[in-house]
Amino acid sequence: MSDNLKIIADKFLSSDNIYILTHKSPDGDTLGSAFALYYALKAKGKSVRVLCADTFPKKFGYMYEAYEDKDFEPKLIASVDVADLNLLGNLSDIYAQKIDICIDHHKSNKIEAPLKYVSVASAATCEIIYTLLGYMNTEFTPLVCDCLYTGISTDTGCFKFSNTTPITHKIAAELMEYGCDYVNINKIMFDTKSKARIEMERMVIDTMQFEYDDRVAIIVVTRQMLTNTGMDESDLDGVAAIPRQIEGVDVGITMKETIDGGYKISVRTSESVDASKICAALGGGGHARAAGCSVNMSSQEAKEAILKAIKPLI
Amino acid sequence: MSDNLKIIADKFLSSDNIYILTHKSPDGDTLGSAFALYYALKAKGKSVRVLCADTFPKKFGYMYEAYEDKDFEPKLIASVDVADLNLLGNLSDIYAQKIDICIDHHKSNKIEAPLKYVSVASAATCEIIYTLLGYMNTEFTPLVCDCLYTGISTDTGCFKFSNTTPITHKIAAELMEYGCDYVNINKIMFDTKSKARIEMERMVIDTMQFEYDDRVAIIVVTRQMLTNTGMDESDLDGVAAIPRQIEGVDVGITMKETIDGGYKISVRTSESVDASKICAALGGGGHARAAGCSVNMSSQEAKEAILKAIKPLI
Repeated sequence: MSDNLKIIADKFLSSDNIYILTHKSPDGDTLGSAFALYYALKAKGKSVRVLCADTFPKKFGYMYEAYEDKDFEPKLIASVDVADLNLLGNLSDIYAQKIDICIDHHKSNKIEAPLKYVSVASAATCEIIYTLLGYMNTEFTPLVCDCLYTGISTDTGCFKFSNTTPITHKIAAELMEYGCDYVNINKIMFDTKSKARIEMERMVIDTMQFEYDDRVAIIVVTRQMLTNTGMDESDLDGVAAIPRQIEGVDVGITMKETIDGGYKISVRTSESVDASKICAALGGGGHARAAGCSVNMSSQEAKEAILKAIKPLI
Repeated sequence: MSDNLKIIADKFLSSDNIYILTHKSPDGDTLGSAFALYYALKAKGKSVRVLCADTFPKKFGYMYEAYEDKDFEPKLIASVDVADLNLLGNLSDIYAQKIDICIDHHKSNKIEAPLKYVSVASAATCEIIYTLLGYMNTEFTPLVCDCLYTGISTDTGCFKFSNTTPITHKIAAELMEYGCDYVNINKIMFDTKSKARIEMERMVIDTMQFEYDDRVAIIVVTRQMLTNTGMDESDLDGVAAIPRQIEGVDVGITMKETIDGGYKISVRTSESVDASKICAALGGGGHARAAGCSVNMSSQEAKEAILKAIKPLI
């Protein structure tokens, strides 16, 4: 399988006029992969573009401030960290059938491409790009390392999540030796919140309600809160993790009011309760520790319904 | 210098009836160091005790649940992660002059001992213990690795802080290969909050006030909040970091009401403002990014005083 990555390395080295496709709602890993590759290929004198259906979030500015977006006809198209064509967003119409190289770490990867390298054991696509750049014999500049570190750090929750492996740490060590600015990157990614986000968290925590001897905690995010703080749903990353973080809570419920007045419910559980079974009872599904469902009910009805679904399982 | 650590390794191996002293208000690093050493020395058939002026916090239970506290007369006394005799708390009276081995990573270390190894470059004392256990040729059991990982992870904010080095990551990789339960440890250390803590954060955020074009954020912790939540000051770890986390805030101020009605003020700053200068104006001091002072004023007076001190610096 890593032979395939060497073939991909050779393909990049022997090509020019390269497009790199990232997934919509871009995160640290897709952008880190794309820009690390961009700077590495630019240093080899090639024309390269990074494409995304959405604008690059401001917090990743340090990765793309040296990026020059120049138009040209692509001769090679690669996707990074994109598991499915629909994740290309509006890029899909033009490029769906034209991907030459697919590099990813998602188990669910469904992209078809002549050259494909999917490593599910890798915590981040940036881990794969790190190996790829080694094969390509490119220079690990501090900027390239900043990009790679960003993907690795964000996809592992700063080395906290179970996808972290010894290899993840070894690569981080290398990136630090090459001069990546890990302190600043981690500060931006993990220790910076907007005023609106702080305000949102305060309002959300105000709604917190405990049930079943405090083993269940429920929070509610209303449309009004989004309006008041000027946030949209994409700014709610991580909010669903709040109730489960509370000591003794086995089931954390986050109810997000939808535009049509119903609720999208996220369920996070400890090992003693199966989240997917709770959600299945309300027509949803997911994994054992994280699942979801949508209900067309009032807030009170939705709470009662989810508590009823939890009862036999807790 | 590492020769000294080899001498320490030999000393442990040739000794029996060993006391290991930890610092008061014990954290992950002092306990991780002590219990890793405890299990390693026990496996060599030795009598070992871990001593602390305070009770071991419950969240570190996985480290000490296999610990058996048996009394005996010590023949060798070692301190781990203890920078100063007064940090021994009430152990100081008995053991202050009897420490044979001192292992630490604090620049400020003032302990006097015949055998001393202080490595300021180490992110955690547990990094030193990792090397020491290697010299002692002890087995890196999952439990020993859990202890060492805890110290490293907590002292670096899960590899986020600037004390993290490539060596830190390489040791973490090794500990994971030996089977440490990093997912669970990080969950307990970083993703678990008590109900009281969540309630405290909500109340504290309610007090947040912005000044100087939102470049300064101030929060207040009152005695009443501590009473209402049943928390004490030692539960306020990390609260002082909240205001500086807000995007655009260069100066984060945390005012904690003291028992006598005054305020202890913590100041955290971005690189553009010197925290120690702000606090010096009020008779305090500290570092460029984190400093403190105490004032005997009302809440309103204290706010005005600190804002006045900030004005020429912002």
